[in-house]
Amino acid sequence: MAALHELRYSECQALLRAGILGRLAVVAPDGPHVVPVNYSVTNDAVIIATTPDGLLARHGPGTRVAFEADHVDHGYEHGWSVMVRGTLAVLDDATEIARIRATWAPRPWASGSRSLLLKLPLTELSGRRLGSGWDPMSELPVPRA
Amino acid sequence: MAALHELRYSECQALLRAGILGRLAVVAPDGPHVVPVNYSVTNDAVIIATTPDGLLARHGPGTRVAFEADHVDHGYEHGWSVMVRGTLAVLDDATEIARIRATWAPRPWASGSRSLLLKLPLTELSGRRLGSGWDPMSELPVPRA
Repeated sequence: MAALHELRYSECQALLRAGILGRLAVVAPDGPHVVPVNYSVTNDAVIIATTPDGLLARHGPGTRVAFEADHVDHGYEHGWSVMVRGTLAVLDDATEIARIRATWAPRPWASGSRSLLLKLPLTELSGRRLGSGWDPMSELPVPRA
Repeated sequence: MAALHELRYSECQALLRAGILGRLAVVAPDGPHVVPVNYSVTNDAVIIATTPDGLLARHGPGTRVAFEADHVDHGYEHGWSVMVRGTLAVLDDATEIARIRATWAPRPWASGSRSLLLKLPLTELSGRRLGSGWDPMSELPVPRA
């Protein structure tokens, strides 16, 4: 067993930027839901593309949510996780939408019209790792060429 | 891009039972949190061992929560996810605790006294997969020998 260590803000940012799949928790009237989503990261926010009539669109905007990304190594029984918490917003500024579509648009694996962009600021960012003696940046969810 | 398909209850159960790490979403006064946890599965519930004074112990029991497990293949850009939702309970029956410790005790990777057992019934179980033409049971988070 290994001890949990808090990650620095810069480490959380770097790990978050290295990934493309996380999980968004929104609170509906019947309690929380956790939905896997593809995401991207701009200068200051996590961006998620979703369907305008889906669960996330109905219960997310204007409410407190949590977004989580992680990676574990089952062989070594260790891993890291990063969480972003805050109020989810709908991206409705045409200039900002155009800028994001041109640069950091999330690329959903799931088909369907995911035309609604949601934005979660990176203000409340925290992360943890299990154990020491290994480099989280060398254990990323997306294999690098 | 691939379409999302609902998984059958039996498939959700099998995938859940094949894993040992998931994410529990609990709603605190300041909104939802998503916490990676090791887990085990009994006949009818997900079991999580946690610290008696931690976030999950303080805000989980007696409230609606969501537990999620998933696995993705970044190369094929597909994956599956399973979610259990319901009211979290503290396991406080000595006989049941003894039975679970003898058979299906979760084995936390994180050190510390995780003496509190939490139980989430499998009643509300759902899952989804991205795309077709592949077998979720052949893509499990824990490599099998």
